[in-house]
Formats: sequence, C-alpha cells, structure tokens
Amino acid sequence: MKVGMIGLGKMGFNLVRNMMRYDHEAVVYDVNAEPREKLAAEGAVPAATIEELVHKLDAPRIVWMMVPAGEIVDSVVDTLLPILSPGDIVIDGGNSHYKQSIARGEKLQEQGIHYFDVGTSGGTDGAEHGGCFMIGGNAEVFNNLEPLFRDMAVDHGYLYAGKLGSGHFLKMIHNGIEYGMMQAIAEGFEVLEKSDFDFDYEQVARVWSNGSVIRSWLMDLTQNAFAKDPKLDGIRGVMHSSGEGKWTVETALDLQASTPVIAMSLMMRYRSLDTDTFHGKVVAALRNEFGGHAVVSK
Amino acid sequence: MKVGMIGLGKMGFNLVRNMMRYDHEAVVYDVNAEPREKLAAEGAVPAATIEELVHKLDAPRIVWMMVPAGEIVDSVVDTLLPILSPGDIVIDGGNSHYKQSIARGEKLQEQGIHYFDVGTSGGTDGAEHGGCFMIGGNAEVFNNLEPLFRDMAVDHGYLYAGKLGSGHFLKMIHNGIEYGMMQAIAEGFEVLEKSDFDFDYEQVARVWSNGSVIRSWLMDLTQNAFAKDPKLDGIRGVMHSSGEGKWTVETALDLQASTPVIAMSLMMRYRSLDTDTFHGKVVAALRNEFGGHAVVSK
Amino acid sequence: MKVGMIGLGKMGFNLVRNMMRYDHEAVVYDVNAEPREKLAAEGAVPAATIEELVHKLDAPRIVWMMVPAGEIVDSVVDTLLPILSPGDIVIDGGNSHYKQSIARGEKLQEQGIHYFDVGTSGGTDGAEHGGCFMIGGNAEVFNNLEPLFRDMAVDHGYLYAGKLGSGHFLKMIHNGIEYGMMQAIAEGFEVLEKSDFDFDYEQVARVWSNGSVIRSWLMDLTQNAFAKDPKLDGIRGVMHSSGEGKWTVETALDLQASTPVIAMSLMMRYRSLDTDTFHGKVVAALRNEFGGHAVVSK
Amino acid sequence: MKVGMIGLGKMGFNLVRNMMRYDHEAVVYDVNAEPREKLAAEGAVPAATIEELVHKLDAPRIVWMMVPAGEIVDSVVDTLLPILSPGDIVIDGGNSHYKQSIARGEKLQEQGIHYFDVGTSGGTDGAEHGGCFMIGGNAEVFNNLEPLFRDMAVDHGYLYAGKLGSGHFLKMIHNGIEYGMMQAIAEGFEVLEKSDFDFDYEQVARVWSNGSVIRSWLMDLTQNAFAKDPKLDGIRGVMHSSGEGKWTVETALDLQASTPVIAMSLMMRYRSLDTDTFHGKVVAALRNEFGGHAVVSK
Repeated sequence: MKVGMIGLGKMGFNLVRNMMRYDHEAVVYDVNAEPREKLAAEGAVPAATIEELVHKLDAPRIVWMMVPAGEIVDSVVDTLLPILSPGDIVIDGGNSHYKQSIARGEKLQEQGIHYFDVGTSGGTDGAEHGGCFMIGGNAEVFNNLEPLFRDMAVDHGYLYAGKLGSGHFLKMIHNGIEYGMMQAIAEGFEVLEKSDFDFDYEQVARVWSNGSVIRSWLMDLTQNAFAKDPKLDGIRGVMHSSGEGKWTVETALDLQASTPVIAMSLMMRYRSLDTDTFHGKVVAALRNEFGGHAVVSK
Repeated sequence: MKVGMIGLGKMGFNLVRNMMRYDHEAVVYDVNAEPREKLAAEGAVPAATIEELVHKLDAPRIVWMMVPAGEIVDSVVDTLLPILSPGDIVIDGGNSHYKQSIARGEKLQEQGIHYFDVGTSGGTDGAEHGGCFMIGGNAEVFNNLEPLFRDMAVDHGYLYAGKLGSGHFLKMIHNGIEYGMMQAIAEGFEVLEKSDFDFDYEQVARVWSNGSVIRSWLMDLTQNAFAKDPKLDGIRGVMHSSGEGKWTVETALDLQASTPVIAMSLMMRYRSLDTDTFHGKVVAALRNEFGGHAVVSK
Repeated sequence: MKVGMIGLGKMGFNLVRNMMRYDHEAVVYDVNAEPREKLAAEGAVPAATIEELVHKLDAPRIVWMMVPAGEIVDSVVDTLLPILSPGDIVIDGGNSHYKQSIARGEKLQEQGIHYFDVGTSGGTDGAEHGGCFMIGGNAEVFNNLEPLFRDMAVDHGYLYAGKLGSGHFLKMIHNGIEYGMMQAIAEGFEVLEKSDFDFDYEQVARVWSNGSVIRSWLMDLTQNAFAKDPKLDGIRGVMHSSGEGKWTVETALDLQASTPVIAMSLMMRYRSLDTDTFHGKVVAALRNEFGGHAVVSK
Repeated sequence: MKVGMIGLGKMGFNLVRNMMRYDHEAVVYDVNAEPREKLAAEGAVPAATIEELVHKLDAPRIVWMMVPAGEIVDSVVDTLLPILSPGDIVIDGGNSHYKQSIARGEKLQEQGIHYFDVGTSGGTDGAEHGGCFMIGGNAEVFNNLEPLFRDMAVDHGYLYAGKLGSGHFLKMIHNGIEYGMMQAIAEGFEVLEKSDFDFDYEQVARVWSNGSVIRSWLMDLTQNAFAKDPKLDGIRGVMHSSGEGKWTVETALDLQASTPVIAMSLMMRYRSLDTDTFHGKVVAALRNEFGGHAVVSK
C-alpha cells in the first residue's frame, strides 16, 4: 500500500520504518526537514508540505496523522479537508480524546472521507518492530486497510474495535489500566525500599518477570530501569501525565463507574508535582489547634 | 468524689482542674514535680509517688491514669496492681488500643479491681472546660462513677458504651472519622488554593462555620488557624499521626470493612512525611522506558 | 427590600418565608400554583408568570432564581433577559456549575444587568431559619444587597466571596467536603457495625455530638437519623449524588490538585448504585484462572 | 537431589511432578492417600506419615512443606523438629507471613536445622511447568539447593533474595502488586461495560495482550476468562482474598509507606462481600436529614 504519514516524531518516524519493512510505500511529511530526509534516505518519498504529500498519493488516498493531540490535529484536518477526495481515508494514530475523534470523523464523513481513530500502544519500540493498534471506524472500509495493520502489528496485535471513537476509547482505557498497573508496581517497590531487607531491585524485577503471576512488559521495563540505575538515585519521583489517565477518570465519573485504583494512580501523580501541600498545612494546623501537636516550621 | 490522677500532662492537668471545679478532691502525681505543685497551689493533694497517691485515697479508690499509651500504661498498672484492693477502680483515660485495655482489665479483674477504658475527646480545652467521654467497663460499677463524668463532661458528653474495651474502641473510631473529616476539609482548601479565585480562607472557614451543612468544631478551628496565619505560610504540610487512625484501618481490615476514606486520609499523612518518593521514581523511570518521556533529574 | 423569587420548591419556598420574617416584600412565582398561593396567604405577592413577577417589582429589580441547575436556569435567564432593565439584579441561588454562572453573568452584564451566583447551604431548615450564603458578583452592587443577606443568614453566615463564579465555586467545594465528611462518618459506623461490640448508635452519635473533636451538624443529623431508625433497617445503602461532588473532583483534576478522600467518597457513591459489579467479576474470574480459586456462581 | 514433599494439594502435587521431570527423587506425604498414590504411580516414593517421609530421606535431608499457611505449618514444624538432624533443610513454600517464617527459622536454627522461606508464584500451572521462586535463608546453604530451583523454575525465575524472611516478604509484596494490577484491569473493563460502545471483551483482552504496554500474564488470563464466558454472566463479582494483600497493606502501615492503590484494591474486595452496606445507609439517611433527598426503602 501507499501511505502518507504526517508527523515524524518518535512514533511517526518508527511507524514509517515499520511499514516500509513490509514493502509499503510511504510519503512522509513533518514540519522539521531532518526526519523527512532521514526517511527519504531509507526509501520514503519526502513531501515539503501537506499539499505535496496529498498530491503524491493515489486516490483513494491513505493519510496517517501522527501528531500531538489537540489543536494540531484540528489544524491538520482543516488543511486536509479541502484537498482530499471522497473515498480517501484519514487515520488519527495519536492520543486524541475519543469524543473529538467522533466529531472529526463525522465532519469528514460529510465530505465522503473515511476517518479511523487508531489507538497505538507499545511505545516507540513497538511502533517500529510491531505495535498494538485499536481501530475505530467504518467496518467495510477497514477491510481495505487490514493488510497494512496486519503487517505493522505484532501477531494478534490489532483489533477492529467498532464504530467511530471506539479505537481511541479503548486506547484511553488501556492507558488508565497502565496508570493503575504502574502505580501498583511502584507501591510494591516503595514498601521494599522502606523495609529493612536489602533487596537488589533489578534482581527482584527480574524474578517477577519470569514465571510469576505479575510478569508483564512493565515489569521487564522495571528491570531495565533498575539495571541502569540500581536505586534510581539519579531521578526525582515527579510523575507527569499526558491526559489519558485523566480522561479515563472523567469518563468513569460520567458513566458513574467506580474506578478507585485508576483514580488514585492519577491523584498520586498530581501529588508528586508538589513538594509541599496546602492540604498538609491545613491538617497540621488543625492538629495543633485541637491537640497542641507541634507543627513543622518552614 | 476523691480521685487520684496519675499523669499531669496537657490532658491530665486540665482534667484535674475540671473535676476540682465541681468540688471533687484530687490527689495528683506526675514524674515531674512542677505540675503537681501547680495543682497543689490550686487545691489538689500532691503525691510524690504512685504509692503515696494510693495511700492518700480512701477505699474503694478511684485511680485515673492519663499517661501516654503503650508501655507506660503497663508500667503504671504493674505498680498499682499489688497496692490496690478489691473493689478499687482504675480508669485509663488515654489512647490505649482497645485490645490492650481488654487484656489489662481482665488482669485487674482477677484481683477484683475494676477497670474502665475511657476514650477522651475534646482536646486540651475540653479536658478543662467540659470534655467528651466514651466509657467501657462494668455497668453496675459505672453507676458509682457516673456523677464524676456527669460533672466533667459537657452536657450529654459522656456515654457508658458497654463492656470492657468499648470505650477505647469508640475513641479509636472517633479518631478515624476525625482523620477523614480533616482530610476532607484540607482537600477542599487545596482546590481553593490551586484555583484562580482569590479567597480569604479565614472568611471562607467562617462562613462555612455558620449555618452550612459542614459546620463543625473542626471548621471553627480551621477559622482559628487561618486567623493566625492567613495562608499558613509559616508551616510545612507535614502531617504526623499518633496511632489511632492506623488502628482504625487495621481494625477495618480485620473486620473486612471497607473504609477507603479513612484509609486514604492515613495514606496521605504518610505520603506527607516524604519529600520525594521511591514509587514516584519507579513510575517516572517506567514512563521513560516505554515512551521516552523525560525524567526530572536530581 | 422587595425581591422576586422564581422557584418555590423546598428551598425557594423557605427562603421566602425567611425574608418575609424580616419584613422584606416577596413577589413569588412557580410553575405550580400551590406554593404561590400558600405564600400569598402568608403575605407574599403571587405572580402567575415570570413577566408578571418582573412587572410587580420596582427598578432596580432583584430577581432570585431558586430552580434546578442546568437547562431550567438557562430557560429562566432567557425569559428574564428581554424584560429586565440595566441596573437590575439577578441572583442564582441554586447549585449551578460555576463556569455556567460566569458565562450567564457575562451575558447579562452585556445588558447592564448584574448577576450574583449565590451558593446556599444549610438545608431546607437553614433556608427558612437562617442559612449560609456564599456570594460571587460585583463588589459594589453587593453593598446594596447586603442587608438582605444579613437578615436571611445566621450570624456570620454570609460571605461576599469575590468575582463572578466565586460563590458557586465555594459552594461546590463545600459539597465536596460534605461528601468526604459524610463518608468518613459513615465508615466509622460501618466498622462499629461489623465489630462484635453492641453499640447504641443513637447514643454514640449523641456523645460524639457533644464535646468531641468531630462534633458537627452532620453528627447531630446522624443522631436524628438513628433516633428514627436505630439500625437504619428500613432503608438501603444506595447513595445518590446530585453533581457537586463530581464537579469538585473534575475541578481538582483540571487543577492537578490531589483530592483522594473526596474522590473516594464519590466512587463509593457510584459503587453503591450497583448490586453486582463487572470489575468484581473480572477479578473473581482472574483468581480462578491463575489459582483455581472458586468463583461464586449466579 | 532427593526431596521430601509434605502437602500434595494443587501446588505441592504439581511441584513434585516438576522436580521429577528433572530426575530429582521425591518422597511424598499428604493426609490424603489419593495424591500420594497418584504420584507413586509416576515414580515418587510415598510415605504414610511425616516420620516415614523423614526416614526415607538421606541426611542432610531436604523437606519441602507445601501446606496452608498458619497453624498447619506450625504443626508440621513441631512434628519435624524432634526427628530432623542438624544440617537438614526445611523449606516453607507456602504463603506464610514473613514474620512467622523468621520466627520458625530462628527456632529451627537453634537446632542446627536450616530454614528457607520460599515464595512461589506462577499458579498451579507454573508449579508444574516452571514456576517463580523467591527464596530467603542462609546464603551458603542455598548454594546446595540452587540446582533444584534452577531446574524447577522457568529461566531466570528464581532469586536468592537474602536473609530469613526475605522470600516470603517478596512474595507478599508480589501479591500486593497483583491485587493492584488485577483491580486496574478490572476497572478498565468496568468502564468499557458501562460505555455505550459494544466491545468484544475477549478480543479487547487479546489485542491488549499483544504488543501493548499493558501486556501481561494477567491480561492473557483475562482473555482466557472471556473466551469461556464472553460477559462473565455466569459468576458474581464477589472478590475473595487470601491474606497476602491484607498483609501488604498492614506492612505498609507499619512502615508508613503510602500504598493507596494496593489499599483500595483490598477495600474493593471487602466491599464486594456485602450486597448492601451500613455506611451506605448512613450516607443515604444523612442526605435525607439535611436535604430531604429520598431514600431507597427496603
């Protein structure tokens, strides 16, 4: 197949390499020239603009967006809308909110353009060597795309999930689960670290990665992380987040679904952004008020 | 009545003043001479040792312990055991674990000595001007003690709760609820502080203290705290704990009772003791491993 | 003062009685005739339509809406907009989302009409006998309104909180705290109920209401509830919610503020809506898969 | 090697098969004759009593206990103590509390008998075809045991973790993490189930098992579970627990380590045991008291 890839960051770049390994042709665009040229040297067709990328594709075209979620997706979609033709396919492989994907898809469908919201997992490594794709959109049109995903995914690593929005919905929930799993693993090591045993954490993660009930890719990565820095002394415990965990909790609230573990994972991330807290001051002040308990002065 | 008070810290000292206001006689002992002498100047009978205190009381004696929970209670009980007589009454007014109170009470009852586990709430101010007492022990013997508690408590502020241990059990649960209430209030102010409104927290606590659904003594104290330091700039948000919240959660686990709010209140207290966390490092390292997300270096 | 009240449900009806006690004049409207007539019998001026209500007021008019949050507020505002004059005042005393109040206020201000978002607490009883009011809007215009709130609030029970939206923001956070406090109290009784002590819950709530650290209006109400039904045998533990707790958590997420206790209070409310859960089935099935642990069949 | 196995339940039985595959000799005992005879037919040496088992081993003996945690372990240890000799080795492969393992190990070491606390993971299938072993005890003596574990574990699936107790400590934390991971996965499916998408859960688990960040053995098992019962209609969401999650939380409390996710996983398990809750009744009754909100009657 011939695919136009818009956005050649860590993910988009690797996805292009992935598809070219399976002899798909890639027309590639990014605001930065460097990744375009690098992929051109590997056999991709570079495009200096989105218009050029569209013109270098054959109808019905396949355009895959791999750009940061939010306004940039809207901007690319707005650029694409007037220059695509009915029957063309636009894929959003980023982490867009599923409600936005539904809205964008409906807008494009008014022009006869097919939209697929594709949640992509597996990290940058998976993007290149076999990823995991959760795909929402028109079922019949997906049949035409399937060979591409069959090649780019690891075995059994793609799913046509259902109607528009279902791909990004699944990816959102996937990330919510990921938050919970990561926090669970991290809390385990927190207790190990506070115990008076003297564990070798790399070895602990290694044994848990082999044959245990909690073996998982995240545990493999935990082993890798401790292999590089046995006590993680070089980093601070600041846990950023990029939105999908928050969306999962917001969605759970909307659906009145009880998700305490995912919610607490997110709360602890927010907590980690503060070195001191206002709620802590209030509690400390109250203990002082009623019991005369000493406060810790600044 | 005539009561021997052992332990003249913030609580015991004020309780003696409280009972003397109602013309009860107090024989007082503390390892430190200062509070003994201070109370002697106010009309109490000082004792230089526990033995002296016991000898200055008339059988059946009433001995009230107001000492730190744990080994000190055991030590005082061991001192009292051989010098008390059948029919005497020992009150533990501190924050002992209810299971220990049951064990101690049973031990004393073998000698015919009555034991009462009395949870005391209301802070140091309540101890002096009218406290709240939750009382476990023998129901009939309690009838003899009731006039004392009727005087020392605020109106309706004492309860004969039931068999041995029930007083400290109630106090433990009271403190568990207190943890949850304090954290709830504190989280509310956390959100106010992170919002872009510009609230006067003393005034907010004041209005919430008057006529609102959440009016409470803790809200009154919140108002007091903000009156002294409008943004609590002078203190750090380190939230210590003294055991009863932990016991509540442990008891809930033993009873398979779901107490997420009390448990989370406690967890946030523990979290506040650390300026950085190991679990945070693990999550940050994992995000870097699978997604190349930047970590915050030390 | 002369005030038009739109919405004569439990809250609005009682607020009218409250203001009339202080010799304020009330023009009253509700879609139902009954409360209008009832209040007319007590001295209020009934209006059969919102238009009539507006015409019976003198400029600058004060119109107080006490209607369910959401579309009904928009509908009343849309009705009021063309028939009010510059300088008139509209009060939203209901539980509107603060962002909607800001939007509505800005819309009315374009026409020179002043908007106040007033969070009202204290329940139906407070509405009649002295409530708690958190007030956002124009500071200067508020000076004209202040005598009304001074009368209708309990002592110190009103606060000019700041710019548009601040009143409903405070009320939202108030309710979030309320969720946490209620759940904390409820968890305490959950542990009491699962213990092997035999407590009289009405008496427990009574003693905790008098002199303890956790004394509060909610504890008074707990006592009342147990007075009516000692074990609450007559009701099911289904905990509905009406939006403000959810908004508090959503706002906390937006501000990256950690509010585990308020979030868990909400999660447990949602959990209570289900008699069985899908997540429970998944965990039970997993335990069976890896350990052969028995599942509970339907 | 020659190993005596006491306890031939699901785990012990399969461990014997595992070791015999690698030409280790097994002397086997269980209170039930059936598994003894079954294993005898596969080449194991059956013993009718623990004494007989000990006598059929050669000094220094290796005795592996695979019996339910708690009093049964103590009973077996008490039986073994007088009939073992200095230099013999006792392995506790069950889920004992690490503090009990330390106490038992110290008691046996007084007699010169070596004790190893071995946490075993991987389920019944892992026990037979390659498990995961976390091993605490004397480092030098472990060298003699290592060939046995190297055979019975999957590659890299065993770890000498450190001093006495460290093996069961690691296993305890492993299970705590397991609770958190399972609840995280389950909450994800809870949201899917409450959404208005129409997902095929077996397929969702399948795609998440292949190439995604959350791929894990637990996700494989999730796929298996949905393969058998697509909506888990046949089972109730009652989540039992067998102690190690509780111990993890209790240990975290003792160490003042914040573990909200593991704690909430446990709380939700307890919550699932109740079809109605007392805390829910309290909250519902309070909502009725202050706001007149309807309760759900029995």
